[in-house]
Amino acid sequence: MASMSRRRQIYEGKAKVLFEGPEPGTLVQYFKDDAAAQQKRGTITGKGVLNNRISEYLMTKLNELGVQTHFVRRLNMREQLVREVEIIPLQVVVRNVAAGSLATRLGIAEGTQLPRSIVEYYYKSEPLHDPMVSEEHITAFGWASTQDLDDMMAMALRVNDFLSGLFLGVGIRLVDFKLEFGRLWNNDEMRIIIADEISPDSCRLWDIKTNDKMDKDRFREDLGQVEEAYQEVARRLGILPEGGPADLKGPKTMQ
Amino acid sequence: MASMSRRRQIYEGKAKVLFEGPEPGTLVQYFKDDAAAQQKRGTITGKGVLNNRISEYLMTKLNELGVQTHFVRRLNMREQLVREVEIIPLQVVVRNVAAGSLATRLGIAEGTQLPRSIVEYYYKSEPLHDPMVSEEHITAFGWASTQDLDDMMAMALRVNDFLSGLFLGVGIRLVDFKLEFGRLWNNDEMRIIIADEISPDSCRLWDIKTNDKMDKDRFREDLGQVEEAYQEVARRLGILPEGGPADLKGPKTMQ
Repeated sequence: MASMSRRRQIYEGKAKVLFEGPEPGTLVQYFKDDAAAQQKRGTITGKGVLNNRISEYLMTKLNELGVQTHFVRRLNMREQLVREVEIIPLQVVVRNVAAGSLATRLGIAEGTQLPRSIVEYYYKSEPLHDPMVSEEHITAFGWASTQDLDDMMAMALRVNDFLSGLFLGVGIRLVDFKLEFGRLWNNDEMRIIIADEISPDSCRLWDIKTNDKMDKDRFREDLGQVEEAYQEVARRLGILPEGGPADLKGPKTMQ
Repeated sequence: MASMSRRRQIYEGKAKVLFEGPEPGTLVQYFKDDAAAQQKRGTITGKGVLNNRISEYLMTKLNELGVQTHFVRRLNMREQLVREVEIIPLQVVVRNVAAGSLATRLGIAEGTQLPRSIVEYYYKSEPLHDPMVSEEHITAFGWASTQDLDDMMAMALRVNDFLSGLFLGVGIRLVDFKLEFGRLWNNDEMRIIIADEISPDSCRLWDIKTNDKMDKDRFREDLGQVEEAYQEVARRLGILPEGGPADLKGPKTMQ
């Protein structure tokens, strides 16, 4: 890993680090085991390895479907090569079932099927705790245009269709998920593509029979067996690393 | 006031009471001096009399402009006759300048001119503290249709144009305001009209020179001289009751 220490770090978030990539227009996305939710901080052993795999798998399939993502290829246990994009400062959330902040804010019992899928936007700002915003705020402050929002909503709904089907096929209910998007420039042409990750860190996934939570809510709500839940998602998708759980620890640091 | 005691009360809110009107399809809207803001409760002497006048004045002008409201005519110091509508459970807020929850949630200094007017929707629910919602929530839960929202937004922007001009003419900056809407049925035809009130309880009004607050924020923020601010708004609009402040106390109870 000697060469890695020379890489320039572009950004460090709670669960991932971005490094300068091997060629212009690329970045290396490194997945940490660190987890954070509001005031809570912790580690989920093997999460980085699993999310790297799960996001690789889901984004590869989306790319094949024609829903373009930033994913290029996985490099190793904890790293993937992605396209460098100009991140749009929004989290786009698609909800199928009431949970989390929607359940709380609108007084709807967790687990209630929504009358239809609902798309929400949150402004990415740690000091402001990612406040919910509407198309009005987004376009007034220039965070994205109406056209950008139409593109993002259409892509988010396609992702919802695909992921709902895929997870249903492996006995999992897709409750909701969060996407991030970025602008990719090609000469003067701009395209919006999916960035960040798609994983049990960014999705709510419930076992279809037991309603057991198989995602980051196990960490948020101190439900225990967090590592096992992430592994089970990978196992059902048929992508659990061959070495099994023992292999998930991988190198924990980046040096 | 003997006959009033026989009227059926339809609804009692924090600042107003609605009674059955003298003929079908009408209600009597009674303005109280009571004021409420989050946990805070209090009384603003003469507020009911002034808001009855101010709302009468503004809604009459809007009706004349072709922006239909529920206002029919003022009955006495504290009461007005209005059309009975099916209230849409939304507060529609138009903002020109950052203040209140927008300033807090998006981290924008109070008083900052917004890049353009922003329309927000809040779901009317006291136990949930009127949470902000977007078109997605509103249409998914059936609180209003896309067509209803288009109609409400168009009307809200017309009201903003008219009120911004009117208040500017009397040395007042219209920072933001809240509207409520209702559905009015005429055989099988439905029209959306403005309901509730338009007053310093529902608008943020700042003196154009001093930026002094001339609205309910004086009560919310314990700035003092609350009664005087409401009187000054009426005075500038040329509609302060002739008897002056002494006349504002009016009958305090409804019996």
